[in-house]
Amino acid sequence: MECDRLWTNARIATCAPGRAGLGMIGDGAIATANGRIVWCGSRAEQPAGLVAGDTIDCAGRLITPGLIDCHTHLIFAGDRSGEFARRLAGETYAEIARGGGGIVASMRATRAATEAELKNSAAKRLSAWKAEGVTTIEIKSGYGLDEATELRMLAAARALEAEAAMRVRATYLGAHAIPPDLTREAYLGLICDRMIPRIAEQSLADAVDGFCESIAFAPDEIARVFTAAQAHGLKVKLHADQLSDLGGAALAARFAALSADHLEYASASGIATMASANTIAVLLPGAYYVLRETRMPPVDAMRSTGCAIAIGSDCNPGTSPILSLRLSAHMACVFFGLTLEEAWLGITRNAAMALGVSAETGTIEAGKSCDLAIWDEDDPASVLGWIGPAPLHRRILKGFDA
Amino acid sequence: MECDRLWTNARIATCAPGRAGLGMIGDGAIATANGRIVWCGSRAEQPAGLVAGDTIDCAGRLITPGLIDCHTHLIFAGDRSGEFARRLAGETYAEIARGGGGIVASMRATRAATEAELKNSAAKRLSAWKAEGVTTIEIKSGYGLDEATELRMLAAARALEAEAAMRVRATYLGAHAIPPDLTREAYLGLICDRMIPRIAEQSLADAVDGFCESIAFAPDEIARVFTAAQAHGLKVKLHADQLSDLGGAALAARFAALSADHLEYASASGIATMASANTIAVLLPGAYYVLRETRMPPVDAMRSTGCAIAIGSDCNPGTSPILSLRLSAHMACVFFGLTLEEAWLGITRNAAMALGVSAETGTIEAGKSCDLAIWDEDDPASVLGWIGPAPLHRRILKGFDA
Ligand SMILES: [Zn+2]
Ligand SMILES: [Zn+2]
Repeated sequence: MECDRLWTNARIATCAPGRAGLGMIGDGAIATANGRIVWCGSRAEQPAGLVAGDTIDCAGRLITPGLIDCHTHLIFAGDRSGEFARRLAGETYAEIARGGGGIVASMRATRAATEAELKNSAAKRLSAWKAEGVTTIEIKSGYGLDEATELRMLAAARALEAEAAMRVRATYLGAHAIPPDLTREAYLGLICDRMIPRIAEQSLADAVDGFCESIAFAPDEIARVFTAAQAHGLKVKLHADQLSDLGGAALAARFAALSADHLEYASASGIATMASANTIAVLLPGAYYVLRETRMPPVDAMRSTGCAIAIGSDCNPGTSPILSLRLSAHMACVFFGLTLEEAWLGITRNAAMALGVSAETGTIEAGKSCDLAIWDEDDPASVLGWIGPAPLHRRILKGFDA
Repeated sequence: MECDRLWTNARIATCAPGRAGLGMIGDGAIATANGRIVWCGSRAEQPAGLVAGDTIDCAGRLITPGLIDCHTHLIFAGDRSGEFARRLAGETYAEIARGGGGIVASMRATRAATEAELKNSAAKRLSAWKAEGVTTIEIKSGYGLDEATELRMLAAARALEAEAAMRVRATYLGAHAIPPDLTREAYLGLICDRMIPRIAEQSLADAVDGFCESIAFAPDEIARVFTAAQAHGLKVKLHADQLSDLGGAALAARFAALSADHLEYASASGIATMASANTIAVLLPGAYYVLRETRMPPVDAMRSTGCAIAIGSDCNPGTSPILSLRLSAHMACVFFGLTLEEAWLGITRNAAMALGVSAETGTIEAGKSCDLAIWDEDDPASVLGWIGPAPLHRRILKGFDA
């Protein structure tokens, strides 16, 4: 077997399915060819005929899959930190929204921004994810709420992938809010009859998302959006049951959604239907923290039904102003009681499933892209157990430093 | 008036007392000479005769005092992330401590480390504080619990100040725990009769701290330590009322302590005595977060009595594994309901008071050291309102980039 590179003398958390825990290999190596993993295993079992062009001694460091943030609103313009100050000083969200704050504030600023401005400000934020070993990130539209701006956001996401050394999945989140300048019916028509067909035809997004909540879209409206998406061959995912139980979990499962996200108010039966449909439960502790929520997502139901759990940063300028997937994973442990192993799988293997990219990345297995995070630690607990700058040694995307 | 440097075209949050809020100057300048501030004010009121050797255009950026972390256990050896994993998996602290975890685990590793090892590992951590614009940090001993190691920790703290471009205040925390190899009485004797006199004589620490709690030292034991400290001219501060109300707040006030820290269980009357004694209340939300505490410190009592509030990271390998003062301030807002202005004052002016260095730093006023953080933002809310890498432009210590 020939390979370009052999990463050796490493502790490897493969995160591969079918192995216990994180699939640890105590003294392992990874062989790659053309940016793909061709072999991974214990050094003691290394194939005799393995010839490497380049051998890299990892000095006992921990290697994990490159991290995956499966839920972000990374692209936006404007700054809503003033809203945080106002909430701390006692104003409610509703009061702030009535004063022109909330999603509409981001919408106004985002509509006023060029594609280059959107891309450049997001690229600057993206450096925080790179410093944490993230190799795949999902980015949603949803701050345009009109045709031109939503397309500009998606184009900026596609451009970021090309320029920023990052695997990017773009999600069309037209159904984020009703824009103040359209009726519900007119806006749903725009989403379903005009935007989705065009986005599908031009491959501007990989999935379609919606916000199912009393303050956003009703379940039957989401069903209409999802039906249009699937008619055009697009996968779906859902902001579900964050502030109340509208049956979002079951709705997402009915459409075999890639994921349902938030889920604080999801019922145990909703989680069970998600498990049957292989819909991933994406936990977003950043918003839970910033909004001072107290209702926890039903993690025990996820465990007992076998509903796989992922974790996202939900990075956005209003409810989750957090530029750290690693801290999000820590918060999922502290707030929601995930174990460290669950947290690790939630930002690797299961996050890949939540984006429909698990054939490509999310675990360290032969056949997958060589997307790795190499750490200045040897223990997965040490990497996630501390808050602050990540102890990242190298970030490898498609086989090479990135 | 002559000055070396003039920082101009800046928004300045002076944090000076006697001004409303953060003492904002919308279009201001700061003149320095020999590393000290000689004038700060609005550009419109700039003294006509002000001649600057070097003028720096800050392009409208926000300047705040250099940040101050007034409570850390930055120097230690070993890694206790495994304890975090075990707690998440259901083990209790008591079980972990019985298995050799907790402070005793850090003690064993710290005793085995050389001064250079302690200094170098702390210097590496310290880079996270520098990246957040921190110019003053307090560092406690307390993981040695024997003579040689406690002195080594304090010597490492002193050496860090010289080498790491950081103002460091060293605190002797011998009264952190009873070492397993001594009786209470023998250890208290060592602290009071041998360590404190020696530390005072050699100026190895700026203050003496203790942990007043049922699992640590009783109030009368702390009083004995404080009496010894004051007899040798050392200021005192206290870990008080974190897990139960032992009257730690009032005890600290009785000794006119610089600060009482944690205070989740402090009584309103204890806070009132602190206010009278000008003892600062130091909030430590990192430990509150990691330990999943639910009892909040009595912030309203602090406000109503005029007890000044500071915020520390409490960085330590067990209960607050957090390398970020800025996130600690955010958590003080989210968990304890501080306003953003209170949080800003808590990591600048009031933190300086908690360390007894307010004549030197903590505000931007003529006469003080020119310790500044210059931000790539123009609004204090934007700097504290986001979580992740700090938008720091430059860090200035004693007038120069550091
Ligand atoms: Zn979201
Ligand atoms: Zn402490």
